[in-house]
Amino acid sequence: IPTHTQPTRSFRTTVCRQQILDASTLPDRILPKYKQTRTSSLLSLQWPEPPRNVLIIPKLLAPHVTLSAVAFAKHIHSEYPNLNIIFERRVASEIHESLPFPIYTSDPNYFPSKIDLVTTLGGDGTILRAASLFSLHESVPPILSFSMGTLGFLGEWKFDEYKRAWREVFMSGSRVTISDLQEHPHAKTPADDHPGDEEVDVPHHGWESVRGKSMGPNRSSKILLRNRLKVGIYDTSGVNINEQLMPTSTDEPHEDLPALPPSLKNHSKSTDPLFPAFHAINELVIHRGSNPHLAIIDVYVNDHFLTEAVADGILVSTPTGSTAYSLSAGGSIMHPLVKTLLITPICARSLSFRPLGLPLSTRVTLRLSDKNRGRELDVSIDGKRRAGVTVGMEIRIEGEAVGRARSAGGFGSGSWTGGVPCVIRSPGRGDGNRDGIAQDDDGWVGGLIGLLKFNYPFGEGQ
Amino acid sequence: IPTHTQPTRSFRTTVCRQQILDASTLPDRILPKYKQTRTSSLLSLQWPEPPRNVLIIPKLLAPHVTLSAVAFAKHIHSEYPNLNIIFERRVASEIHESLPFPIYTSDPNYFPSKIDLVTTLGGDGTILRAASLFSLHESVPPILSFSMGTLGFLGEWKFDEYKRAWREVFMSGSRVTISDLQEHPHAKTPADDHPGDEEVDVPHHGWESVRGKSMGPNRSSKILLRNRLKVGIYDTSGVNINEQLMPTSTDEPHEDLPALPPSLKNHSKSTDPLFPAFHAINELVIHRGSNPHLAIIDVYVNDHFLTEAVADGILVSTPTGSTAYSLSAGGSIMHPLVKTLLITPICARSLSFRPLGLPLSTRVTLRLSDKNRGRELDVSIDGKRRAGVTVGMEIRIEGEAVGRARSAGGFGSGSWTGGVPCVIRSPGRGDGNRDGIAQDDDGWVGGLIGLLKFNYPFGEGQ
Amino acid sequence: IPTHTQPTRSFRTTVCRQQILDASTLPDRILPKYKQTRTSSLLSLQWPEPPRNVLIIPKLLAPHVTLSAVAFAKHIHSEYPNLNIIFERRVASEIHESLPFPIYTSDPNYFPSKIDLVTTLGGDGTILRAASLFSLHESVPPILSFSMGTLGFLGEWKFDEYKRAWREVFMSGSRVTISDLQEHPHAKTPADDHPGDEEVDVPHHGWESVRGKSMGPNRSSKILLRNRLKVGIYDTSGVNINEQLMPTSTDEPHEDLPALPPSLKNHSKSTDPLFPAFHAINELVIHRGSNPHLAIIDVYVNDHFLTEAVADGILVSTPTGSTAYSLSAGGSIMHPLVKTLLITPICARSLSFRPLGLPLSTRVTLRLSDKNRGRELDVSIDGKRRAGVTVGMEIRIEGEAVGRARSAGGFGSGSWTGGVPCVIRSPGRGDGNRDGIAQDDDGWVGGLIGLLKFNYPFGEGQ
Amino acid sequence: IPTHTQPTRSFRTTVCRQQILDASTLPDRILPKYKQTRTSSLLSLQWPEPPRNVLIIPKLLAPHVTLSAVAFAKHIHSEYPNLNIIFERRVASEIHESLPFPIYTSDPNYFPSKIDLVTTLGGDGTILRAASLFSLHESVPPILSFSMGTLGFLGEWKFDEYKRAWREVFMSGSRVTISDLQEHPHAKTPADDHPGDEEVDVPHHGWESVRGKSMGPNRSSKILLRNRLKVGIYDTSGVNINEQLMPTSTDEPHEDLPALPPSLKNHSKSTDPLFPAFHAINELVIHRGSNPHLAIIDVYVNDHFLTEAVADGILVSTPTGSTAYSLSAGGSIMHPLVKTLLITPICARSLSFRPLGLPLSTRVTLRLSDKNRGRELDVSIDGKRRAGVTVGMEIRIEGEAVGRARSAGGFGSGSWTGGVPCVIRSPGRGDGNRDGIAQDDDGWVGGLIGLLKFNYPFGEGQ
Ligand SMILES: NC(=O)C1=CN([C@@H]2O[C@H](COP(=O)(O)OP(=O)(O)OC[C@H]3O[C@@H](n4cnc5c(N)ncnc54)[C@H](O)[C@@H]3O)[C@@H](O)[C@H]2O)C=CC1
Ligand SMILES: NC(=O)C1=CN([C@@H]2O[C@H](COP(=O)(O)OP(=O)(O)OC[C@H]3O[C@@H](n4cnc5c(N)ncnc54)[C@H](O)[C@@H]3O)[C@@H](O)[C@H]2O)C=CC1
Ligand SMILES: NC(=O)C1=CN([C@@H]2O[C@H](COP(=O)(O)OP(=O)(O)OC[C@H]3O[C@@H](n4cnc5c(N)ncnc54)[C@H](O)[C@@H]3O)[C@@H](O)[C@H]2O)C=CC1
Ligand SMILES: NC(=O)C1=CN([C@@H]2O[C@H](COP(=O)(O)OP(=O)(O)OC[C@H]3O[C@@H](n4cnc5c(N)ncnc54)[C@H](O)[C@@H]3O)[C@@H](O)[C@H]2O)C=CC1
Repeated sequence: IPTHTQPTRSFRTTVCRQQILDASTLPDRILPKYKQTRTSSLLSLQWPEPPRNVLIIPKLLAPHVTLSAVAFAKHIHSEYPNLNIIFERRVASEIHESLPFPIYTSDPNYFPSKIDLVTTLGGDGTILRAASLFSLHESVPPILSFSMGTLGFLGEWKFDEYKRAWREVFMSGSRVTISDLQEHPHAKTPADDHPGDEEVDVPHHGWESVRGKSMGPNRSSKILLRNRLKVGIYDTSGVNINEQLMPTSTDEPHEDLPALPPSLKNHSKSTDPLFPAFHAINELVIHRGSNPHLAIIDVYVNDHFLTEAVADGILVSTPTGSTAYSLSAGGSIMHPLVKTLLITPICARSLSFRPLGLPLSTRVTLRLSDKNRGRELDVSIDGKRRAGVTVGMEIRIEGEAVGRARSAGGFGSGSWTGGVPCVIRSPGRGDGNRDGIAQDDDGWVGGLIGLLKFNYPFGEGQ
Repeated sequence: IPTHTQPTRSFRTTVCRQQILDASTLPDRILPKYKQTRTSSLLSLQWPEPPRNVLIIPKLLAPHVTLSAVAFAKHIHSEYPNLNIIFERRVASEIHESLPFPIYTSDPNYFPSKIDLVTTLGGDGTILRAASLFSLHESVPPILSFSMGTLGFLGEWKFDEYKRAWREVFMSGSRVTISDLQEHPHAKTPADDHPGDEEVDVPHHGWESVRGKSMGPNRSSKILLRNRLKVGIYDTSGVNINEQLMPTSTDEPHEDLPALPPSLKNHSKSTDPLFPAFHAINELVIHRGSNPHLAIIDVYVNDHFLTEAVADGILVSTPTGSTAYSLSAGGSIMHPLVKTLLITPICARSLSFRPLGLPLSTRVTLRLSDKNRGRELDVSIDGKRRAGVTVGMEIRIEGEAVGRARSAGGFGSGSWTGGVPCVIRSPGRGDGNRDGIAQDDDGWVGGLIGLLKFNYPFGEGQ
Repeated sequence: IPTHTQPTRSFRTTVCRQQILDASTLPDRILPKYKQTRTSSLLSLQWPEPPRNVLIIPKLLAPHVTLSAVAFAKHIHSEYPNLNIIFERRVASEIHESLPFPIYTSDPNYFPSKIDLVTTLGGDGTILRAASLFSLHESVPPILSFSMGTLGFLGEWKFDEYKRAWREVFMSGSRVTISDLQEHPHAKTPADDHPGDEEVDVPHHGWESVRGKSMGPNRSSKILLRNRLKVGIYDTSGVNINEQLMPTSTDEPHEDLPALPPSLKNHSKSTDPLFPAFHAINELVIHRGSNPHLAIIDVYVNDHFLTEAVADGILVSTPTGSTAYSLSAGGSIMHPLVKTLLITPICARSLSFRPLGLPLSTRVTLRLSDKNRGRELDVSIDGKRRAGVTVGMEIRIEGEAVGRARSAGGFGSGSWTGGVPCVIRSPGRGDGNRDGIAQDDDGWVGGLIGLLKFNYPFGEGQ
Repeated sequence: IPTHTQPTRSFRTTVCRQQILDASTLPDRILPKYKQTRTSSLLSLQWPEPPRNVLIIPKLLAPHVTLSAVAFAKHIHSEYPNLNIIFERRVASEIHESLPFPIYTSDPNYFPSKIDLVTTLGGDGTILRAASLFSLHESVPPILSFSMGTLGFLGEWKFDEYKRAWREVFMSGSRVTISDLQEHPHAKTPADDHPGDEEVDVPHHGWESVRGKSMGPNRSSKILLRNRLKVGIYDTSGVNINEQLMPTSTDEPHEDLPALPPSLKNHSKSTDPLFPAFHAINELVIHRGSNPHLAIIDVYVNDHFLTEAVADGILVSTPTGSTAYSLSAGGSIMHPLVKTLLITPICARSLSFRPLGLPLSTRVTLRLSDKNRGRELDVSIDGKRRAGVTVGMEIRIEGEAVGRARSAGGFGSGSWTGGVPCVIRSPGRGDGNRDGIAQDDDGWVGGLIGLLKFNYPFGEGQ
């Protein structure tokens, strides 16, 4: 694999087209801020300077999606010239010949420190895959997701909107119209019309190179911050074995999960008892798998014994995951902004094990009861099998804290950590005059009705 | 009814025993503060000075509970001499002859401005009745509830613990041991061991008169703040008709809901669109009642159309109410600290109307569809029928905001508003060494298992 | 109301058009036989001679349905000249001016002894209303039902198929092609191709007058026999008070339920402990109605105590009713041919009250517990409120036996009793070559998918 | 393994104690009759002559159960001297040293033609294991089951009742009191008190050797005939591969499933399209097993396409199985006498896939959709994994017909086939005066309440 040591602009003109460069040499990621607004429960994305390093994740094994990824990469390369475009290794080798400019790749363990922004092309599974690249990390870059073919419940944008979508997320928080920038690139921004909101440091440079259509001032991307669960898997002597666990799902190719770079390793070790935690965006599942017998799992809540679950399995789900497996298992549908974690049994051998919702900050422990005897149970996170666990092992789960980090973390003091920031589709021209409404529309109600067929009416011809 | 104009202590000696005095003449209520702590998600009750006006609410039509109320009143009268003991009018006339000291009563509309602390003796229904006395108000006094006979899910204390329970809640936040008080009544309190916590103004007087057993320093009552829903009922021309609505349940005696006193009437009218709102601690229900036909209700979420519910009815529930009617209707169980409101259909004529959980701040509107034709549907709040509604009318619901009031409210600037502060049972001597655990124990898990028979195991002899 | 004493054919030519004649003077009903076949679980309708007395029941208060009823009546009057067309009194007076021939009506209590065949035009509600006319009787005539507007789950035929539908049901069991009849009206029928099946006496006369298009030989209408529940309501002294109970639903006009004619009164009194029983085709419901408190009902199964239901109410449903209220209350969907009765609680205050299915012959008793105190609960049958019941009263329910009567019943020895015989739609020309499949198609699976949206798939654009 | 060719009584005295003889040499089984009675929906067991060959199946790996099996075997050997006592091979070698008389064993494929009566000692799993020995056969001997330790839902008798239980089932249908037999061994039996019931040929010999306490005349064992499902597994070319499928559950030892003896092989091949069928007493399950992705299964009902199930799996259950896995998956509880088969999805990815009940005679086909791609799904019957199935394979299921065989079957003309005849516990002395009630008591309601905690009441101390 050809690598490139100095990915500076001056140098770039000499590198061979279609080369695959080493993403680990790229400048470190730019950490955006997320501002609360009065009119919406969504956050507003604020780039301190334009994002540079974009990871593009197309659905695997879907040739038409690869083609779309090529089109998308070409567009942003030509219109936004300072961007570095990154792919996973396997995708990079497949795609680089189709691209008339160099692209980047690296071991995925460098992504958390390099990637400013992720773009997925595919369905919910692709978004879950994107999130899983950051599943050992507290700070996930914003994810802009395009649905390809059948719509997913998590994906927000249609692919044919990709130019508008990209421009919006790239410019988000620049606070100037593009025409302003071109004329008075260093002028002051107009005053924020929400003066009560917390001050944000707005640099006015970096966006100058973007030419073309103007956007309204103060237009910014809306972010739905999806809460995650931290998951630690402990062996019978109480040692966290997360780092030994490789993805074991066989039908989706993956690279070895590399050792964490030292800079990340030390980070927050002392403060976080679950460290290093896996982070789940949908859920953690323990399941009997192919074992024909019922699984027996002791459930503790904040170290109190709650119950012995005798069941096919048990789910601990985020509100995002409430429309995934938990829904199938009989759980209620929770809006992703409700701060809760759900305990949903899978086929419990009980008439009275109703799904539970606990505060997101609750500590849940699942311990394999001795009664399971020799059985090995499957542990999966977001649909990927991670481990087989046996008697005496336990899984500890806790909602991930979200917000501005208190003490200096790995990426600089006071930066945002926690959650998966998903760029929410804003209404376009064809969407009618929904300006008022759109302020608070996170697409969730639309997805419930359109995709999940929530309360689908009886009767013919509907 | 004899009333008494000046309920000062000096005067009290001359009044006739067994008299019923006018509670509206009592000093205004003392507003406690609620402090967050690091070790628990419960709040800590902080009285700025000792509470004086106590409303005692026994279960109705239950003679043995009335006897317990007498015992309780005698105890606190003799041990805590500055207390004014208040009953609802009907209870007062039944009970005053049994008490060798004067008691107070008044129209219930004075309670919100006079009552420092409520004590209920009964089950969940009695607590709901207590809360309903404050259902038009934003600030509810702390409620100390005793279970009598069968335990309820909301009630925390066993009646035979009443002496300890009272002492704890009365002293809560005084921050001195009682022996300290007796020796050096004006000495400084020991420094707060959570110096980072927000400063609380601690007066050191007022508790001197309480003699007897000492409590540990810094011992305070734990408060579970139960979120409520604000409910407005609107006629076909969009006018809020809450004030015209009287409780209509016939099997529980009630007094006329009096006009609000002027001071409260103006309060916050401008800022609150639902004003005057009913506040529900369990839920709001629309139901077909005796009408044999399905009700048809349009549901809007933040002004977006969500769905047309064709059903027996529809519930909008707090997390507290998730273990009440919503549970029976198939809803999930939510911990009372999860900030959510639940939409749960009652016998929806649909295979795909799953219960929903939305952020507590969501605005939900239920509008009676024209398709109901002439039908009148029942509207109930917390198990009390409040109105019959017809085509075109609507119910607007929103989670009540909770916290320190921003602007000056009715009761003084910056005071706590919102929610129902319930005093949580602390472990006693007989409860074993649960000190560590008890910090975060709100009794909820115990109630699930002990009372709701959550995941009750199969098999004989359990 | 004009009545006519001798509705013989010779006389008919002289009666004034548009007259309303007295249906009680019509010849007694003709009892069809129902033959089991090897290829289908449906029964085959066998008229011993052509049906004469047809009751047409259009949906009420729906003018376009009334017009369709007129068209239908004109068609069968002109093509099938010996028919007597009967309407309920209220419909008759509304419609008779639109019809150029006399029609019949009477008190509904004569219908059970006069009506050969019922035709409904409307939805499920109209079929339920038709069945309710026979709800005190063991033998219900076949019901041919047309859906008007929105399809119902029970209705089988589209109205524009009415000519074919009528011809098929009218000729059913005649076992000759119409051309055969015209040429050799008294010839022997071809041998039954299922010689093992039980012999049926086939008269070859009566169908001669029907001219026109030929049908295939042996073509007969398929009958889905819907099982009913027998329901007895007992006062506190154990006396069956069914006869005193009038329909009390106010929004659907009804005539007084008349005293049974003597001939029916004596019938089967001795053999049937529930006599006179109401018969439910969907379900029996006890419900708290407008009472805000939970209902408390003791449930007995074959005289064993089963459970105390604390709930909004309780349903005892037929398999037919499993897709009605019971479905909304969480019950499973049962095929109408499964011989079961379902006990489904409505919002039970219990985590462990799962819906139950018992053998259809089970005796279920619902007794109002003393704990209900003064409350009156609503009792409804098939969506019509029948009674308010109080403490100590009970409802006894039992699946109706179905088949050939053992001993001589009211209508002649060995005739079929029990159940509601519904004429199932046979596939027409436009339905494709479904001959093989159609043999066993009762339309139920189609209704599940098309109407109830059973397992409606997720995803867009469906 | 020593075998013995001629297990006649004369010879027996010479065989070595503790020997294990060859059960294949035993006389062929005696087929009992099952009589319907007027007072109960249970059947009455009628032995034409005393049963001789008893298979005793203790729970595996449970030493105290093995001890009980020894006690039981000794008792019946000494009191009922003509009995041949058979064990599964593995149990026989473990137990024979503890027994002072020879016992029998053989390949389990001889059991169906040799065993008169099965006795299980264990829980539901042991009964399922007993039934699985006959799962390729249409005629299952009566099963007398004793619960050991925790009660099961299927097991009826407590072990300490074993003497009474055995006597009752052994004598069942002999129609004479034991004292009668001793005095007038060949006297006529008293007339049947249900003369209308079908004649049963009653031989009066064979029971003479049983001495001791007398039973009432006409006392017979009540039989609950549990319906089974016939299951055929077909490869992609439509060939039934049942015979190639071995039990694959690894945690329960088993012997190779031997080739069917020729006599059974030909039997009924022509008439039964599913031959050779597995018979399930609980259910057939297809499940994703350890595969993390959803299974996709097309469901056909009587060859009509019903739905595409996207789910963890799908269950087709008997009414007996309705309280097993189907219950956990959300199915309703069905009484075992309701003739239905249930289709219950396991975690269906759909809001509208409600459990279904179809007539027991329905043909259900489950076909693995192409959309599963390479996935292999698990197929289990009654909790034992039987096969892994892949795209294009299908499972065909049908309720087993039950009753007197029409044509000559393998075991003689007109004998009973189908179902699993379970001996129901009759009330003993200590059970109070429940004579009247007990007539129809199949223990099912008791099991619901006592074991499944059906509608377990809320509140403390229950
Ligand atoms: N029985 C079930 O319902 C099962 C569900 N799953 C879910 O699948 C997820 C993994 O997804 P894939 O890798 O794509 O597996 P997959 O190919 O098996 O598809 C899972 C399905 O769930 C949808 N989905 C995923 N996350 C969702 C969400 N948050 N809300 C709504 N729908 C969602 C996807 O669009 C897809 O239709 C797991 O996290 C788990 O939640 C996994 C196994 C069984
Ligand atoms: N089918 C049902 O489940 C119905 C339930 N209700 C509930 O009853 C409440 C009114 O209570 P009462 O006046 O005592 O009526 P009630 O006398 O009908 O009793 C209601 C029952 O609900 C329990 N309960 C009340 N609030 C609860 C909570 N938050 N969590 C757990 N259990 C709770 C009570 O202990 C009592 O057992 C309503 O707010 C409503 O939630 C009212 C009608 C029907
Ligand atoms: N929450 C609910 O689901 C309620 C349901 N009902 C049902 O309504 C029936 C009375 O019907 P209407 O007078 O038309 O009242 P209605 O006008 O309230 O409509 C009831 C609805 O149920 C449908 N329906 C009736 N019987 C059905 C069946 N066997 N299978 C599938 N759908 C069926 C009708 O098409 C209609 O959509 C009652 O027998 C009861 O089953 C009555 C009250 C409440
Ligand atoms: N999630 C679940 O509920 C699962 C249930 N099963 C059930 O287990 C059965 C196999 O039983 P074992 O080998 O003992 O496995 P097991 O050791 O896993 O126990 C299954 C449990 O189901 C009970 N059971 C079995 N049949 C029953 C019936 N008809 N009614 C009520 N309870 C019943 C048993 O007493 C035992 O408690 C399967 O036929 C299946 O029905 C199997 C896997 C998962």
